[in-house]
Amino acid sequence: MTLAPWRSPLAHALHRNRSLVYARYLQLATLGSDQRPANRTIVFRGFLEETNTLKFVTDQRSEKVNQIAVNSWGEACWYFPKTREQFRLGGELKVVGENHPDATLTKARRLIWQDLSDKGRLQFYWPDPGQPQAETAAFDPPENLAETPLTNFCLLLLEPERVDHLELRGDPQSRSLYQWDRDRAHNWSVLEVNP
Amino acid sequence: MTLAPWRSPLAHALHRNRSLVYARYLQLATLGSDQRPANRTIVFRGFLEETNTLKFVTDQRSEKVNQIAVNSWGEACWYFPKTREQFRLGGELKVVGENHPDATLTKARRLIWQDLSDKGRLQFYWPDPGQPQAETAAFDPPENLAETPLTNFCLLLLEPERVDHLELRGDPQSRSLYQWDRDRAHNWSVLEVNP
Repeated sequence: MTLAPWRSPLAHALHRNRSLVYARYLQLATLGSDQRPANRTIVFRGFLEETNTLKFVTDQRSEKVNQIAVNSWGEACWYFPKTREQFRLGGELKVVGENHPDATLTKARRLIWQDLSDKGRLQFYWPDPGQPQAETAAFDPPENLAETPLTNFCLLLLEPERVDHLELRGDPQSRSLYQWDRDRAHNWSVLEVNP
Repeated sequence: MTLAPWRSPLAHALHRNRSLVYARYLQLATLGSDQRPANRTIVFRGFLEETNTLKFVTDQRSEKVNQIAVNSWGEACWYFPKTREQFRLGGELKVVGENHPDATLTKARRLIWQDLSDKGRLQFYWPDPGQPQAETAAFDPPENLAETPLTNFCLLLLEPERVDHLELRGDPQSRSLYQWDRDRAHNWSVLEVNP
């Protein structure tokens, strides 16, 4: 596989912002069943091996899983504070749960669970997100956390087809549009556009 | 007018993150005419006087203006790095250009232009955003910037109807859902939910 041409500037941004833990946080927009956009912060967990696909984790019980089942297109907006640049990554989202047919993906799901901290894993034991607190029994944390992923633990994948990179530093600012061509040999094109 | 109940925690977050200039940056999701969500970083410019409406600026030529004309609902996602909390604000978006019929809003548009730095104003003189750079004549900055807003300068308003406040600090995390009731006397309700 070939690294997409936006991988190099993104790797650069990640490196130069590495002192900020929240430089790995980005905002993912999806479309709700009410045809309204939804937007929330998620944590970047690296790339799926040998691909240009971004990895995240999510809870099967979260709203975005239902939204993605109906509308699989999403756009992530990633702002890097130190270098003052923004990546907008649009593409198909995929949720990988326990019973996903692709063995490579279920393996990636298992590995990412093993990489989670205890605190990260514990969130998947929590009572149903978004439900009124009063109606939920007090949460009693388990003594030991499972070594294999809980059923509601999902790997979330974003395979970008369109990447819009804006650099605010510099006068003038610079902006590059990367576009994946589904038809012509799956190539990426790059275009410098006005910011 | 009454301050909505989410104004106080939001003011708190703004205050406690005030040392970070980018704590005033948030991500706005809108819906494209292709029925795909779009997402980009925008800068918070305060509240419209005597309202719970957030102010931003935008360029008439930007994609989001066309998107909002077709689908006026948007969701902003605002992450505060220092205090580790997130506000998701969903509501109607409104674009206020030169010929908007509401005099209060056109006045607010004028005032926000006057508050912009020269660098901020200059962006509205730039060639058409998103167009290929090669096809654009070299940009020749004007010697003096107008004291009144350029025609393509717009005030962008977000009037939240639903605010989801998540605090990651604390064990357990806490999450409050604020909902505006269009029918019943325009009141806000608050519900503590599972994070």
